[in-house]
Amino acid sequence: MLKPERILRLERNRVVMLDQRRLPDEEVELSCGSAAEVAEAIRSLAVRGAPAIGIAAGYGYALAVGRGEDPDEVAAVFEAARPTAVNLAWALREVRAAADPVARARELHAEEVDRCREMSAHAAGLFAAGSRALTHCNTGALATGGQGTALGALREAWARGLLRHVLVDETRPLLQGARLTAWELEAEGIPHTVVADSAAGSLLARGEVDCVLVGADRIAANGDTANKIGTYPLAVLAARHEVPFYVVAPTSTVDPETATGAEIPIEERAPAEVSARFPARNPAFDVTPAELITAIVTERGVHRPPYAESLPRRVLA
Amino acid sequence: MLKPERILRLERNRVVMLDQRRLPDEEVELSCGSAAEVAEAIRSLAVRGAPAIGIAAGYGYALAVGRGEDPDEVAAVFEAARPTAVNLAWALREVRAAADPVARARELHAEEVDRCREMSAHAAGLFAAGSRALTHCNTGALATGGQGTALGALREAWARGLLRHVLVDETRPLLQGARLTAWELEAEGIPHTVVADSAAGSLLARGEVDCVLVGADRIAANGDTANKIGTYPLAVLAARHEVPFYVVAPTSTVDPETATGAEIPIEERAPAEVSARFPARNPAFDVTPAELITAIVTERGVHRPPYAESLPRRVLA
Repeated sequence: MLKPERILRLERNRVVMLDQRRLPDEEVELSCGSAAEVAEAIRSLAVRGAPAIGIAAGYGYALAVGRGEDPDEVAAVFEAARPTAVNLAWALREVRAAADPVARARELHAEEVDRCREMSAHAAGLFAAGSRALTHCNTGALATGGQGTALGALREAWARGLLRHVLVDETRPLLQGARLTAWELEAEGIPHTVVADSAAGSLLARGEVDCVLVGADRIAANGDTANKIGTYPLAVLAARHEVPFYVVAPTSTVDPETATGAEIPIEERAPAEVSARFPARNPAFDVTPAELITAIVTERGVHRPPYAESLPRRVLA
Repeated sequence: MLKPERILRLERNRVVMLDQRRLPDEEVELSCGSAAEVAEAIRSLAVRGAPAIGIAAGYGYALAVGRGEDPDEVAAVFEAARPTAVNLAWALREVRAAADPVARARELHAEEVDRCREMSAHAAGLFAAGSRALTHCNTGALATGGQGTALGALREAWARGLLRHVLVDETRPLLQGARLTAWELEAEGIPHTVVADSAAGSLLARGEVDCVLVGADRIAANGDTANKIGTYPLAVLAARHEVPFYVVAPTSTVDPETATGAEIPIEERAPAEVSARFPARNPAFDVTPAELITAIVTERGVHRPPYAESLPRRVLA
């Protein structure tokens, strides 16, 4: 597995990250020297995934404020970067409240690594032997700085001998599944097959999928879950074919201040990511209603409906 | 609208077609001089769409047999080209049975143009004023040699002032929506927006779609319909959100010899169309069960469930 510091690290005057825009073709690092540069790396998806952008914002804040940038302005720059994942706002609050922002930012990363390991163990307990799983987007080391959320669970299930195969939604428009998840699974030696997002429905209908695992960008207090566009149709199809649909995410993704999915802001990204030639729309996330989610797995355990009662509150510093 | 002979035509020694692989960037013609060349054009999607590949096979057969190629071998070459769309096998039977294959092939094309016009008129009658439609893949002039099936209906609804806007699924992996449907709609001045296939679900959930129209590659006797991969999830989502889901196709696509969708062969295309770097699977079609289809529209009219009773038999020569 990729080491946490390979995904993201704070050096003396830089935040350094593996540039995910260039994977799987090239493994190159991007080095950012200011809040503006880190925020641009987040906006442009050089680093992406809800936990990872929280860590990146934490490091970026600590770096910039340490260099004398104004704390309010720095926080505003990061808050404007991407609206849907709640981890970013949460990490900023944590680092701002700390006496030593650098130490707290490093600690947040280490905690995210621990949470990944714990939630992966809980989620692996849901697998029957020989499971064929389907996943969407990238929820691995690249998305978390740890072993991953949904993909962390797949790693753990593989290590326990319970996982047979992973179907990987390519995840248009930016192909995080086809570029990043397949790359991580290949490195682990886990058998995998990339499919067009629109093929998942008929594979579920044919009985070729035993469970669906996805991550999350924000989980509302009632369990409604915002995640990469295409998650909602997958949940509808899994329910139709009675295939369990699991959300795997740290408590840093649970937002008790958001009552339901209707209140989650959905980022609309540049139409050119979908079509450079014709008019296009590009909602980056959708909301899956809690009723379609079999269980939500955090580092605290496996939470079942009703989520308003079962979901843990966020771990506070 | 593109003239039928611009899409496909039979010249003295050639079958000439607009090369759809190069749209929308370039409008170039591909000229085929043998059955093998026409079959390769069909396989490689230089010409695609169930009605259009039927016409292409008809022209190709007439050309090749006129040049002295063996009729059985020529038919076998075309039958092996693509398995799902029944129009191809049907057109071959029609042309083989004719005293004058050239005349019958031209007549088939002219009949397909008439059927498109008729089914479009029937389907346009289903539109309320101000409709926002969603469509998948390409079902226009390029796919039919006429005005189109589902896209023909959208043209007619636009001409009648009933259509406000078209959402176009990009249609991975080969982007027939983003490349071909958007190009045809732009040429007609019909407002349109391209979206990732996986975004359609949340747009349906948000109430932004009044009707879904798709074409078909084969309709079984019970109404189960094979169409471009991604059609089935769209039908499931339309049903969930109580949005009417219409299949628009000529009787040449109805196959009374296929009892149900389970018997329809699903073409698996090259994995490299999905990913050139990682293992991939590429089913080109899926099957939508009849229960999810609000109506099937052919040149004979609007057919409602139960389709085993309402579907017309194919028009025989």
